[in-house]
Amino acid sequence: MAQGSYVEDDYQRDTTYVEDRVTREASGEHEWPVEPGRYRLVVARACPWANRAIIVRRLLGLEDAISMGVCGPTHDEDSWTFDLDEDGLDPVLRIPRLKDAYERRFPGYPRGITVPALVEVATGRLVTNDFAPMTLDLSTQWREHHRPGAPDLYPRPLRAEMDEVMQRVYTEVNNGVYRCGFAGTQTAYEEAYGRLWATLDWLEERLADRRYLMGETVTEADVRLFTTLARFDAVYHGHFKCNRHKLSEMPVLWAYARDLFQTPGFGDTIDFAHVKRHYYEVHRDINPTGIVPVGPDLAGWGTPHGRESLGGSAFGDGTPPGPPPPGERVDPAHNPLLGPDGLVRPPAAAPTDGSASAQPRR
Amino acid sequence: MAQGSYVEDDYQRDTTYVEDRVTREASGEHEWPVEPGRYRLVVARACPWANRAIIVRRLLGLEDAISMGVCGPTHDEDSWTFDLDEDGLDPVLRIPRLKDAYERRFPGYPRGITVPALVEVATGRLVTNDFAPMTLDLSTQWREHHRPGAPDLYPRPLRAEMDEVMQRVYTEVNNGVYRCGFAGTQTAYEEAYGRLWATLDWLEERLADRRYLMGETVTEADVRLFTTLARFDAVYHGHFKCNRHKLSEMPVLWAYARDLFQTPGFGDTIDFAHVKRHYYEVHRDINPTGIVPVGPDLAGWGTPHGRESLGGSAFGDGTPPGPPPPGERVDPAHNPLLGPDGLVRPPAAAPTDGSASAQPRR
Repeated sequence: MAQGSYVEDDYQRDTTYVEDRVTREASGEHEWPVEPGRYRLVVARACPWANRAIIVRRLLGLEDAISMGVCGPTHDEDSWTFDLDEDGLDPVLRIPRLKDAYERRFPGYPRGITVPALVEVATGRLVTNDFAPMTLDLSTQWREHHRPGAPDLYPRPLRAEMDEVMQRVYTEVNNGVYRCGFAGTQTAYEEAYGRLWATLDWLEERLADRRYLMGETVTEADVRLFTTLARFDAVYHGHFKCNRHKLSEMPVLWAYARDLFQTPGFGDTIDFAHVKRHYYEVHRDINPTGIVPVGPDLAGWGTPHGRESLGGSAFGDGTPPGPPPPGERVDPAHNPLLGPDGLVRPPAAAPTDGSASAQPRR
Repeated sequence: MAQGSYVEDDYQRDTTYVEDRVTREASGEHEWPVEPGRYRLVVARACPWANRAIIVRRLLGLEDAISMGVCGPTHDEDSWTFDLDEDGLDPVLRIPRLKDAYERRFPGYPRGITVPALVEVATGRLVTNDFAPMTLDLSTQWREHHRPGAPDLYPRPLRAEMDEVMQRVYTEVNNGVYRCGFAGTQTAYEEAYGRLWATLDWLEERLADRRYLMGETVTEADVRLFTTLARFDAVYHGHFKCNRHKLSEMPVLWAYARDLFQTPGFGDTIDFAHVKRHYYEVHRDINPTGIVPVGPDLAGWGTPHGRESLGGSAFGDGTPPGPPPPGERVDPAHNPLLGPDGLVRPPAAAPTDGSASAQPRR
């Protein structure tokens, strides 16, 4: 996650990333070859930009090709850290701070230490932290390592329109909530708020008659919108003052978000406790006490969404991913919607007698 | 409004007030006689404790007996001020700061300068700032100056139960939201949050089958609960982290609050702009930027509440107050639910053809 910074009267994200890519052809100095086992994806479940990569890796079934290290929810000014791991060291990279991988590649690296980051396991060097191409490359460059039934998250015929939609979602929503929260003046905040809600209203309309952002199946565009929506009521509504409505008061967007949340690969990646702790504990400039709200009540995420009537299905001709591997499951104490297999429980509660009429997972 | 203060691990309201009273018999050193024109009620529309007095004075029709001075929404550490008035002076007391009336009575007054305050006009001296007995005395001691049709807000047969209900509402809700917002530790906050929501759940249940807190008609108990509910989604939900649900997500309490809001004397006293500016600009310790949220959308306050089916009526055998006098109307830019007469517009919009079927005000 790029670190926020105040400037005179508006919030500017530092968008200078290490722009290396991992590609099938690996042509040129800044491209690295696709090779299972060679890279480790370092994430924090708190971070929406890292959450994209967690979801895409899982939807595509790349768990065996690219391992995953998980940083804790909070960080100091220095770095995200592996404080969730035993001894505070990532079990594969054997480093305590993600910064160490940045330094191994660029001694004296001067910018923020951000997740998601791809790190070369053998050398411990950062490969890239450029989150936007990173997930598209997982879709397009790693195709031969996808699981059977994996969705095409970046379908060629849709790319022109999809790029436009994703650009608007990026500047106005993904980044728009930060622009509200880190505005340095009332004027800058009000302008940011207006932009955010104009686009949320546009999305409310766009999604009224189509199941997913690009139509009948999920794409990367849905992943990108989802990671902000999943944090909206828990953090952005109050902490960032994005409070015209709660997501749960926007009928279409809320149903859309629940539909995705209940789809394997989406809601099962959300650690609400990490999300809340990250924002409320780290941003002392807007929450000096560091106190983390107990709310909101999350039960609504598990209610029926009714979007089936729009047709479409998340994975089209493909299949949903199975339950997350045991080592990669979100702590059910941090996401009360999860069942014992680490997947979001289906909306209609299964009968308590354990009979065969229990609603099957999709 | 008593000023908040941090103590080791909990929020303590300074509840030492000037406990003088204005009474019909004026017995003893700390009682002053009821006398129309003698006192001025100083309020701020932002403040929930002052809001009680604004509502009660209006429901009882005491406008001619007790004049009202209105402070601006924000104050420094020193005092509430008359910054809304021309030249920054209260037009009757001719002072710029409420503190001047406190000092006139007690030179070197060491405590917080709070509203509501009753000030003797002739001498400019503070009489009392003890908000809890103040409104009950308006009901019981000033009865011969009430308007015809004024409600009995503190009916003798109900007092024992009413005092209990009001005590719980005071400690757990009116003050409970502050206990959440000003908690000095995570533990203190979580305990405060638990207490608040336990009582809101109790109220949700209590009000499910009775129109008002004490039954068929409004009483002071409703006034006291209303002033917190009217600020809940605008301030307490986000700023004080009272965020299990929005008020608008609590079906019974939300309908109850709208019912009161749409009753003359309640919603027409609410200045949402002052309320938000006060909390977000004054409490820099929890909102360092001073930025005031644009939300929430307020349209819901004007929607039908459906509580008529429970029977009862706000004023029983009495009548509602008329529109507020022109000098005491809330700026409609600060409360979009107000009509041109300063009253809350009725929920069902009048037909645009101006026909006689326009819904009458109650």
